[in-house]
Amino acid sequence: MSITDELVANAERYAESFRHGELALPPAKRVAVVACMDARLNVYGLLGLGEGDAHVIRNAGGVITAGERRSLAISQRLLGTREIVLIHHTDCGMLTFTDDGFKRDVYDDVGIKPDWAAEAFTDLEEDVIQSIRRIRADPFIPHKDAIRGFVYDVRTGRLGEVKP
Amino acid sequence: MSITDELVANAERYAESFRHGELALPPAKRVAVVACMDARLNVYGLLGLGEGDAHVIRNAGGVITAGERRSLAISQRLLGTREIVLIHHTDCGMLTFTDDGFKRDVYDDVGIKPDWAAEAFTDLEEDVIQSIRRIRADPFIPHKDAIRGFVYDVRTGRLGEVKP
Repeated sequence: MSITDELVANAERYAESFRHGELALPPAKRVAVVACMDARLNVYGLLGLGEGDAHVIRNAGGVITAGERRSLAISQRLLGTREIVLIHHTDCGMLTFTDDGFKRDVYDDVGIKPDWAAEAFTDLEEDVIQSIRRIRADPFIPHKDAIRGFVYDVRTGRLGEVKP
Repeated sequence: MSITDELVANAERYAESFRHGELALPPAKRVAVVACMDARLNVYGLLGLGEGDAHVIRNAGGVITAGERRSLAISQRLLGTREIVLIHHTDCGMLTFTDDGFKRDVYDDVGIKPDWAAEAFTDLEEDVIQSIRRIRADPFIPHKDAIRGFVYDVRTGRLGEVKP
């Protein structure tokens, strides 16, 4: 049995006790969260979210690239969210390499360099602020007066706000 | 008090009972999930994931664009994941508009057309298969023999596999 088979079996148990069948498409709390994909960062658990509450956007690093700006524009324009919460975290994989090194390793392995930035960073708080600035600079995201950024500590479970 | 303030207060409660401080950076189950950002799709709850188990990548639609290929390449190359689970869902916002209409609306609002695809789609299963094909076509994601795609039913809580 693969891990995926295990997860599918878990999903059957979830469905058996499911009681959220009448939730609306727009997020009830009108908030979009952008967080790192890191396995230790349980966004629903951490923020106390329930089914139907918030859009959750996640990627390697919790960075803001074109794809996240697409998701945020759709989230606000079509589905009514108004606040944005950004979450990076301690011990992030993105702190362990550089874009140049990553591109070189991939080139050595497959003979082609990625034509995208890996988005490695060296300072968590700086990258949270960078992410806020990228959202503010985007012309397609309409609501920018409630953007806040945080660093989650994977050792203590604490969420600390980054003050720009 | 803003919604974000509420979520921060929830995070304080999460930290008070936190017991996952010694988890490793690489996901224990060596799986990466790519799912829609939809508020009703509780990925941890649905798949029975716990802190430390899996990378979770999410965006509007659960589609595969350059950013998701970046996250998957980092997930597999640097952090050891081997299986990929794709999750779209019924009643998705991406079924409610077209790329042309979205671009026109944004242009009418801000005078600039987005220079990215909104990635709207008309058929859930077809877009899951499209996502699998985009991963298979990517030269930078090394492990492609365990990619499976699903549609989650937001009315019943059931996860159905899409057979390519």
